[in-house]
Amino acid sequence: MRRAIALAARGLGGTSPNPVVGCVILDPSGEVAGEGFHAYAGGPHAEVVALREAGERARGGTAYVTLEPCNHTGRTGPCSAALLEAGVARVVVAVSDPNPKAAGGAAVLRRHGVVVDEGVLTAEAEEVNAAWLTYVRAGRPHVTWKFAATVDGRSAAEDGTSQWITSPEARADVHRLRAGSDAVVAGIGTVLADDPRLTARPAAGVPVPARAAPVLRVVVDSDARTPAAARVLDGEAPTLVGVAEDAAVPAHLSPHAVRLPRVPGGIDLHALLAELHGRQVVSVLIEGGPTLAGAFLREGLVDRVVGYLAPALLGAGAAALGPAGASTITEIHRLEFAEVTPVGPDLRLVLRPKSSGIASSGIASSGPESSSLQSPKES
Amino acid sequence: MRRAIALAARGLGGTSPNPVVGCVILDPSGEVAGEGFHAYAGGPHAEVVALREAGERARGGTAYVTLEPCNHTGRTGPCSAALLEAGVARVVVAVSDPNPKAAGGAAVLRRHGVVVDEGVLTAEAEEVNAAWLTYVRAGRPHVTWKFAATVDGRSAAEDGTSQWITSPEARADVHRLRAGSDAVVAGIGTVLADDPRLTARPAAGVPVPARAAPVLRVVVDSDARTPAAARVLDGEAPTLVGVAEDAAVPAHLSPHAVRLPRVPGGIDLHALLAELHGRQVVSVLIEGGPTLAGAFLREGLVDRVVGYLAPALLGAGAAALGPAGASTITEIHRLEFAEVTPVGPDLRLVLRPKSSGIASSGIASSGPESSSLQSPKES
Ligand SMILES: NC(=O)c1ccc[n+]([C@@H]2O[C@H](COP(=O)([O-])OP(=O)(O)OC[C@H]3O[C@@H](n4cnc5c(N)ncnc54)[C@H](OP(=O)(O)O)[C@@H]3O)[C@@H](O)[C@H]2O)c1
Ligand SMILES: NC(=O)c1ccc[n+]([C@@H]2O[C@H](COP(=O)([O-])OP(=O)(O)OC[C@H]3O[C@@H](n4cnc5c(N)ncnc54)[C@H](OP(=O)(O)O)[C@@H]3O)[C@@H](O)[C@H]2O)c1
Repeated sequence: MRRAIALAARGLGGTSPNPVVGCVILDPSGEVAGEGFHAYAGGPHAEVVALREAGERARGGTAYVTLEPCNHTGRTGPCSAALLEAGVARVVVAVSDPNPKAAGGAAVLRRHGVVVDEGVLTAEAEEVNAAWLTYVRAGRPHVTWKFAATVDGRSAAEDGTSQWITSPEARADVHRLRAGSDAVVAGIGTVLADDPRLTARPAAGVPVPARAAPVLRVVVDSDARTPAAARVLDGEAPTLVGVAEDAAVPAHLSPHAVRLPRVPGGIDLHALLAELHGRQVVSVLIEGGPTLAGAFLREGLVDRVVGYLAPALLGAGAAALGPAGASTITEIHRLEFAEVTPVGPDLRLVLRPKSSGIASSGIASSGPESSSLQSPKES
Repeated sequence: MRRAIALAARGLGGTSPNPVVGCVILDPSGEVAGEGFHAYAGGPHAEVVALREAGERARGGTAYVTLEPCNHTGRTGPCSAALLEAGVARVVVAVSDPNPKAAGGAAVLRRHGVVVDEGVLTAEAEEVNAAWLTYVRAGRPHVTWKFAATVDGRSAAEDGTSQWITSPEARADVHRLRAGSDAVVAGIGTVLADDPRLTARPAAGVPVPARAAPVLRVVVDSDARTPAAARVLDGEAPTLVGVAEDAAVPAHLSPHAVRLPRVPGGIDLHALLAELHGRQVVSVLIEGGPTLAGAFLREGLVDRVVGYLAPALLGAGAAALGPAGASTITEIHRLEFAEVTPVGPDLRLVLRPKSSGIASSGIASSGPESSSLQSPKES
């Protein structure tokens, strides 16, 4: 199953709005006969790829699948039927399918005499599918907030200069993060201050997922202030501008504007995410600024934090995070370190909400990645 | 030599104002005949301990010493003489002694026909002796700034509450840091706000160095405002209050006060460190607050930063670091990550000034500890 999970991970970033799935088929003697993963939406499912490779050796064998085989005829036929047809005797499943349209594969297999074991390596398999599971279970995209700052939490110097706090390696890593997201979101403050392109521009040679569509750019802009000349409107990728329902939308924004309820502080972020969910956006990367990030955090809408810390100190300047609804220490947003990795001279920290299951607002914490933390040593 | 360095490290925190030293003696056949380290000031030197264990087996053998053997008769006899007397044929030295009083051991040994190899594993051996080498070479104590904060760099919530951002494990680690320092320094802002004790109170069972003297408490207090009832004056450890030369010192402070030149922002920190150097303080831990830490950093007087980051976000509240003389991005204080270690749920980051030798303001960066950083992995 570990191998199946590793296979599944190879589809990350390419399968939206589908889950990532990996499958390993053993022949009756226990030898690997076929392997597969779901690589892109509309492409063959993992089971089908693995069965094709296994051929006749699948008969009487065992299939390890990271997600319950689907039972509906979508762009490809149901996988449960394919497994039955191939004569697989046993199917081992890590995560049961929470998608009401697809579920039922295990029941169908059992009805036809196949032994089905569920719940094997569930936590690890849920982790690799965190975005999609949040999308299906919580009915909204999985949200990652990314920031870059000094060790003392500054994203810019006192005079506003900020290029470059983190290293080229860290910036390249951010492009990889973007390329693996269905949408990148920024606040109008950032658009007016930095005029970012918000496109994923991974470095040459960096493997990127084969995306069905380019990454959607989203600007959160209650009063429709995004200028006509803003780079986010350069046509290099689709752009959606979330404006308040009562905003006066200028002509250059009308093809992009989506009207959303106004709430104190701006537009309703829950409504924004519902809108993105409706557009089959499975994962969202919040690129800032601090005000917008604080609002997402305050609303309990952050599933993952990716921080790039430069080994540097400023002592003054813009904070990486703005007001997030915590005014006293008991309201602090508690998370856990899930991954700590050097990226060039910088440190990439991945944090997740504390010990929450993958559901409305967080994902399992005890993944294989937590082993990347070292045990303390004497100093 | 690696073993000798590990032995040397066992003396850390106990040897001030002496260096830590480790020694391994091999007999002529290359077998380990004796080991030793310098454990406390006034105690036997590493070479003497190792020679005592080796006995006659040292004759014709090799001594690995982390620091050039001393040549002066201090509280113990010169180690060069002891090595000669034992008949050691070869001495391998990691770091030459920069202390004019002690140096010359290698020359004396060579004059008596002993083969002396210098410069073996120098960087690692310098790292273990960083504090003492700074003390001797720069003529001031080695300075560590310690802070505790959220991932977004906040040390307290908006309303001033801060207990407890970091975990009991991190707080215990701070007590270990204190116990390994000769002096702990705080600003008057911290003394008035928090009334800290500033004593080292390591948890039961935690091995602490056998200190010759308790850790000195130092308050930086230009106008001699430390109240009579302040806990730093509770008599549990000696306390020094650095006041400006023109301050009106109240009676309760006169036994503690040391007058120092006044500069913009407070007292002259270089003069403070010179004063501490004169009192044989080899290592200093700056405990805060942000104003004082910023001043030390601005003056180029920080050799090491130890940050405890809690996996939490606040978005508002006091910053861990105050103005540090960097108002634009080119003035940023660049360091390097030397160690990244989980401490309970928190992360301990150790940073050092970028690629500086151990001299006036920094120590070697490429120590064995940097291997605690992981290589990047796919996300
Ligand atoms: N280091 C980093 O990682 C990083 C990344 C990005 C940006 N930045 C920096 O951040 C700065 C800009 O940040 P900022 O905080 O001023 O602006 P921002 O977070 O980019 O945008 C905030 C604006 O978004 C709009 N908004 C709409 N609905 C909202 C809601 N529900 N909650 C919060 N905001 C909502 C509001 O303006 P309306 O009311 O007009 O809609 C609000 O003022 C720039 O200087 C940029 O350089 C740093
Ligand atoms: N999270 C942490 O790690 C941590 C640690 C400690 C404290 N804290 C917090 O920090 C806060 C207090 O910090 P603070 O920044 O207000 O005060 P501070 O840094 O403790 O003390 C600053 C004061 O020290 C005096 N000083 C004398 N010479 C100085 C010099 N050369 N440079 C700078 N200062 C000099 C100045 O007062 P005079 O001019 O009167 O001498 C100055 O106002 C408290 O709220 C405390 O809870 C946090």
